[in-house]
This record gives sequence, structure tokens and C-alpha cells, in this order.
Amino acid sequence: MPTIELIGLIAATLTTSAFVPQVYKAFKNKSTADISMTMYAVLLAGLILWTVYGIYHKSLAIILANTITGALAIVMIILKIKHK
Amino acid sequence: MPTIELIGLIAATLTTSAFVPQVYKAFKNKSTADISMTMYAVLLAGLILWTVYGIYHKSLAIILANTITGALAIVMIILKIKHK
Repeated sequence: MPTIELIGLIAATLTTSAFVPQVYKAFKNKSTADISMTMYAVLLAGLILWTVYGIYHKSLAIILANTITGALAIVMIILKIKHK
Repeated sequence: MPTIELIGLIAATLTTSAFVPQVYKAFKNKSTADISMTMYAVLLAGLILWTVYGIYHKSLAIILANTITGALAIVMIILKIKHK
């Protein structure tokens, strides 16, 4: 694999996995007062469109990164609704 | 512009602008207790690598989306340090 594509893969892994500690924190503390619902709603809309883009271009990396981040965004939205 | 590229452009605009209401909320409320510092640190590292990827591939869309989101992530890190 060319170095630049490896960099892209690491970049995708980091920007996706970044949301895991946020989900964990909200889940553990049962508190989401400082979390912006608008952020996660707009983010989810964008991630769905990125997934459509990835499906069209048959890019497994784009599809995987965006569906996983999308799933984490949905969990954050649920936690935000649950712990107002 | 092909429809699918327009979808990609809208996707990039949404996933970048999503962070604006979060920055606004943290700035306005001066409270970031529920915000994960780890999330924004890992996200920033990923966004820097995405920018490197974009520079290599001469993709202005990737460079712009990731530098703007990166700037917003830096503001969130500063607000998180300021309002513990």
C-alpha cells in the first residue's frame, strides 16, 4: 500500500474512533447538557450523504468510516435525548 | 458538476459545519464538563492527517473541509481547557 494511502487509512481510523471516548463519557456520566444536539443531527445528515458518495464510488473505506461514525452519532443523539 | 460530486460537496459542508453549534454552545454556556477532551485530541490528529492526504492528492475540497473542522476542533480544545 502506498504511504499516502496508509496515511488516509490512519486518518479515517482516527476521525471515526475519536467519537468512542465521547460516547463512553456520556454513557458513564449520564450527562449530556454541554453536548450540542444540533451538532450530532447535522453531522449524521452529512455522514449519510458521505455513505451515499462512498457507495457510488465503491469505496469501502468511505462507506465503513462513515457508517461507523454515523452509528456513534446515533448513540450520542439517543444519549442526548435520554439524559437531557 | 455531476450529482454525486454535488452530494459529496454537501456532505463535506454538513460534517464540517456540524461543529459550529457545538463551539457556539460551549462558548455561550462557558461549560464543557460533558465534552470529551480525548475525542477532540484524536479528531484533530485525524484531521491533520486528512489534510496531508488532501495536499498530496491536490484535493481542495479535502484540504478545506479538514482545515476548517481542525480549526473548530482547536477552539473546542481551548474552550475545554478554559472551562473545565
